Amino acid sequence: MNLILFQKRSDFRKLPADDPRAVHIREVLGMQKGDRLDVGLVNGPRGRAILLNNPSGDALRLKIEWGEEIPKPCPISLLAGLPRPQTARKLLRECASLGLGKIMFFEAEKGEPSYKKSKLWSAGEWHRQLMQGAEQAFSTHLPEVSHFPSLRAALPDFDKDPFPYRVGVDNYESTMALSQFHVNDDETLCLLAVGPERGWSQDERNTLRETGFTLAHLGERVLRMETATIAALSIIAAKMGLM
Amino acid sequence: MNLILFQKRSDFRKLPADDPRAVHIREVLGMQKGDRLDVGLVNGPRGRAILLNNPSGDALRLKIEWGEEIPKPCPISLLAGLPRPQTARKLLRECASLGLGKIMFFEAEKGEPSYKKSKLWSAGEWHRQLMQGAEQAFSTHLPEVSHFPSLRAALPDFDKDPFPYRVGVDNYESTMALSQFHVNDDETLCLLAVGPERGWSQDERNTLRETGFTLAHLGERVLRMETATIAALSIIAAKMGLM
Repeated sequence: MNLILFQKRSDFRKLPADDPRAVHIREVLGMQKGDRLDVGLVNGPRGRAILLNNPSGDALRLKIEWGEEIPKPCPISLLAGLPRPQTARKLLRECASLGLGKIMFFEAEKGEPSYKKSKLWSAGEWHRQLMQGAEQAFSTHLPEVSHFPSLRAALPDFDKDPFPYRVGVDNYESTMALSQFHVNDDETLCLLAVGPERGWSQDERNTLRETGFTLAHLGERVLRMETATIAALSIIAAKMGLM
Repeated sequence: MNLILFQKRSDFRKLPADDPRAVHIREVLGMQKGDRLDVGLVNGPRGRAILLNNPSGDALRLKIEWGEEIPKPCPISLLAGLPRPQTARKLLRECASLGLGKIMFFEAEKGEPSYKKSKLWSAGEWHRQLMQGAEQAFSTHLPEVSHFPSLRAALPDFDKDPFPYRVGVDNYESTMALSQFHVNDDETLCLLAVGPERGWSQDERNTLRETGFTLAHLGERVLRMETATIAALSIIAAKMGLM
C-alpha cells in the first residue's frame, strides 16, 4: 500500500482502531503522532495526511491537505471473458494498478456460468481488489467495472465509447504478433479484448472481427490469462509512449 | 498444465499412482487407456504420450513418441534483486512461462538477508515453480537460475555472456520510458535488471550505469515487482518481434 484511498472527501478523518487502514498505519507503517502519510480520494486528487494522535488502540485521527491535480486514467480499457474468481481477483488488482479506464466482463462461451456466482462479485470484494490495486500503484483512479451475459450483449456498451483502436489477443488463430499492431502515440482510447482461460469460440472470434477488432498473438507460449493481459496492456501502453 | 515435463528421456515411463503428474492425468484430465497427452523433456523436445493402462489407482504407464524440434529460449535474461519468497515464486513461474534464458538473483542493498533462507531455495521448491511455469506455457525450456551476494558479485557472471542490450527498470530516477529504449528485432541477447521491492540503492544505480545499463521507467504508476517484470519483458520481447 503506497497510498491510502478514501471514498469521500473530508479534511478531518477518524478511523476506528480496527479499520484495516488504521491497522496498516499502526502496525505496518509504525507511525506516531505528527507523522505524515500519502492518501488519495477515489477518482480524485492525492493528499498528505498528518496523524493527530498516537495510534495506540484508539481511533486514529487524521488531518488531510488535498492536492489539486487528479491523476488521469490510462487510455486503455479491457473487454475480458469472465474468468474463474481467483484469476478475476488478480485481473482486478492488476488492471487497477495499471489505471485502466473500464473493465467489461462478459460470460464467454468457453467460460463457466458458476464464475458469476462467486462471492467475489456479490459481497463487494471486487471493489476492495480494485482499491488495493490503485493503492499499490500510488493512484486514485478506479476502473469502471461492468458485466454482460455474452460478448454480443457488450457491443452496445463499448460502442458508446469512441475506441478507435480495438485489438484482441488470440494465440490460436492469429498470425500477426501484437507488436505489429499499429497504435499512434496520441493516447487515443484503445479497447483490448482477452478471452477466458479456455480461449475464444469461433462465434466470438467472428463477432470481434465484425466489430473492428484486429486479432493478434503474443508469441508461441501459452500464458495464463492474467499474464497475457499484463503483457498485452504493457505492449500497447508502450506503443502509446506511456511505459 | 498444458504439457507434462520429464527430466529424463525415455520412451516408456511408469508413474506411481501418487506422483503429482499421475494424479493430474487421472483426476484433472480424466484420461483413460488409449488417450494421448502432450509431454516434454526438460530443455529438450516435446512429445506425445499414450496411456497404456487405465489410471485407476495403479501406477500409470506411458509410451512416448518424441518430436525433433527443441523449443528455443527467449533471448532475454533477468537480473533481479532477490525479493521476498512469495514474490520470488511468482517471478520463477512467470519467467519460466516467458521462456527466459537465465535468472540471476542478487542480494540487493534494500533487500532482506532472510529472503535467501526461505525453504523456497533450500528444498528444491524453486525448481518445481520453474517446471510449473514451463508446463503452463507448453514449453520445455527451464531458465538457468543463479544467486549472488550482491549486484557487483554478479558482474563477472553476466559479462561471460554477450548481452549487447542491457536495460534496468527504475521508476524513481529515470526520465526515459522503456518504450524509448532501442532494440533491434534481430533477437540479440538482452539483460533486463529489476530492483527488489524497495528499489535500487544509489550504489547499485551507479554500478548499473558503469556496466552499460540504460535506466528506463514504466510510467507514473508504482507496479509490484512481478508486474513490472512481466511488463518490461513483454515490451522488450515486442520490440524484438517475439510478441
